[in-house]
Amino acid sequence: MKAVRWRSAVSQSPFESDHMGPPTGSTSLPRVFAQPQLAQLQRQSVVRHAAATAIEQEVMVDAIPDSLLRAGDDQNSMRGHFERMIRKAQADICAAVEEVDGCKFRQDAWTRPGGGGGITRVMQDGNVWEKAGVGVSVVFGKMPQEAYRAATGTNKSNGASKDDMVPFFAAGISSVMHPKNPHCPTMHFNYRYFETDEWNGIPAQWWFGGGTDITPSYIDEEDQRHFHGVYKRVCDNHDPAYYPKFKQWADDYFLNKHRNERRGLGGIFFDDLRDKPREEIVKFSTEAVNAVCESYLPIVKKHRDDAFTQKEKEWQQMRRGRYVEYNLVYDRGTTFGLKTGGRIESILMSLPLTCRFEYCHEVAPGSPEADLLDACTNPRTWV
Amino acid sequence: MKAVRWRSAVSQSPFESDHMGPPTGSTSLPRVFAQPQLAQLQRQSVVRHAAATAIEQEVMVDAIPDSLLRAGDDQNSMRGHFERMIRKAQADICAAVEEVDGCKFRQDAWTRPGGGGGITRVMQDGNVWEKAGVGVSVVFGKMPQEAYRAATGTNKSNGASKDDMVPFFAAGISSVMHPKNPHCPTMHFNYRYFETDEWNGIPAQWWFGGGTDITPSYIDEEDQRHFHGVYKRVCDNHDPAYYPKFKQWADDYFLNKHRNERRGLGGIFFDDLRDKPREEIVKFSTEAVNAVCESYLPIVKKHRDDAFTQKEKEWQQMRRGRYVEYNLVYDRGTTFGLKTGGRIESILMSLPLTCRFEYCHEVAPGSPEADLLDACTNPRTWV
Repeated sequence: MKAVRWRSAVSQSPFESDHMGPPTGSTSLPRVFAQPQLAQLQRQSVVRHAAATAIEQEVMVDAIPDSLLRAGDDQNSMRGHFERMIRKAQADICAAVEEVDGCKFRQDAWTRPGGGGGITRVMQDGNVWEKAGVGVSVVFGKMPQEAYRAATGTNKSNGASKDDMVPFFAAGISSVMHPKNPHCPTMHFNYRYFETDEWNGIPAQWWFGGGTDITPSYIDEEDQRHFHGVYKRVCDNHDPAYYPKFKQWADDYFLNKHRNERRGLGGIFFDDLRDKPREEIVKFSTEAVNAVCESYLPIVKKHRDDAFTQKEKEWQQMRRGRYVEYNLVYDRGTTFGLKTGGRIESILMSLPLTCRFEYCHEVAPGSPEADLLDACTNPRTWV
Repeated sequence: MKAVRWRSAVSQSPFESDHMGPPTGSTSLPRVFAQPQLAQLQRQSVVRHAAATAIEQEVMVDAIPDSLLRAGDDQNSMRGHFERMIRKAQADICAAVEEVDGCKFRQDAWTRPGGGGGITRVMQDGNVWEKAGVGVSVVFGKMPQEAYRAATGTNKSNGASKDDMVPFFAAGISSVMHPKNPHCPTMHFNYRYFETDEWNGIPAQWWFGGGTDITPSYIDEEDQRHFHGVYKRVCDNHDPAYYPKFKQWADDYFLNKHRNERRGLGGIFFDDLRDKPREEIVKFSTEAVNAVCESYLPIVKKHRDDAFTQKEKEWQQMRRGRYVEYNLVYDRGTTFGLKTGGRIESILMSLPLTCRFEYCHEVAPGSPEADLLDACTNPRTWV
């Protein structure tokens, strides 16, 4: 019998839950931390590390169950609805990507004895994409009270002992796609739904998180207007405050703080979303995840056959190096997953197949490379 | 006038000070953390983050001063001695590497208004090495009491206020070299000396740290006996207990915990070394750093012209991917430096020029690749 190992609640897939730290908020940390900011950093770190909780070792399966919920769970619940939504999105997006690329995704799936599981789909060394992965996962876990309070804003514990943890459910879809042509951008998205059980007399809580962001090596303004335009339209369909807020949040979150440089040109990012009825927010999440193909694939199709120089390819490889820096140093799903023992291959499917780290690389003033760096340093308004 | 920015005390070069956390000790953390280990992880993180302290922004210089100590500092002190020792080692090692490679190192140097500075030397895309860097730095900083206590073992604070920090001096040399030929190993070393000033009635403290480790893509047992043999000899010259202890420490430290796999085949690693008179330990440190060329260069010369296949090159690139994972996720000098704002290019000179991240790569049973993985998972005794 396989030994049960205890795992992180959020490390089963590349979730990027802000519940592992305080809300990302609307201000980015400066590159150099003054003392008060340092204290903030320490708090974040404590909360993040404190979030490691009990999850069993996965068991790889050949036949994927129709539902990754626990046996007997209500399939008509939001849990069931969200799982079906992300599994359909995974299938639809992979099919659309396969149609553009001509190659197929491989699939790896797992379940856990106590419920939950995941499906990772990866296409490696395709015709158009160097590496593209789309994963879904369903997790039943327990989170520390600190993480619970950060996520829900509640201060109650109703006399629970300090080490008592809060049972939760999470389901999410996550993806990164790295095309080969340096004029085709990398794209990432992640949409997730959390629920806590009723705990210690405190009612069950729920919230949504997610986002989609784009990382080109070269700026095509029309592409950016298209990409951001799609998400502005999706946001505006639900709340006119969403796009400006979530665009800013993406600019703050996808930041290589040590360089004060974003990994790319952003998009939208949100977390702890519970400001409207659940049925409304899930419609927003669904519309956002279903907009991935519309927002991204036309850009890839437009540029996949663009001519490029060796220098342009090397620049793309360097930008991928920055992507690796971001994912391994800052990305919350990745760093937390690595430190607490998730399915490593699913967590790291987000890394590019190849990349480059040059010492003291400098871009020529006025060059397209300098323009990209400027846009990564001083985020622009695209729509 | 350039604004002074506050920096980490240890982020000025790739120091790997254990003072940023509790002693590495002799046991490695398991891949998956049970609750008591999680608490330990949290403490480590707190101590590590708490170590960010006040250091000024560097000023790049063309002419390097004879000493990076503060004006008026005693050049005959251990500080002066150690700085001269590592600067000579940097010059000697770079000269020897240039002779093997045929290409030259570039040099970047900086000082700080309040004392200290660094010299980074990097060779990129040479004939034999894809990237090789050797850096020295001298830092005057302040460390939190937590870090001070972890490093020195003292529990006294003599009534100092909680936020009062301990002034310290540190000097170190650090290097990573990534050859092109997949049959030539990557090598890393770092040697450092720390001193605290007398503080709050507690006398000044000092300690040494360091190590050299090797990361081949393919095992050549003769090479490993040679490499480890050199450090066993160096250790044995000073204390017969050193080699077994420091070899184990390297096996514990250079571990990708999320894979339960070492990045390579180890070597020696030590920290908080203060168990003998300072004059004896500095002789050991000096002998170890001066053994780098003897331990490493014959291996590179032996294999630099080895024939290799595309598959072998890709395997090397994947092992470099693991090196990147280690450096960005675990290496204390790197992670701490990145999060607190050191000279980024000096910190990240340790990353390979190119690397590869494959999803679910599997090695053939019985293959040389499987043999390497086994040695990284179950450390071997080479001498």
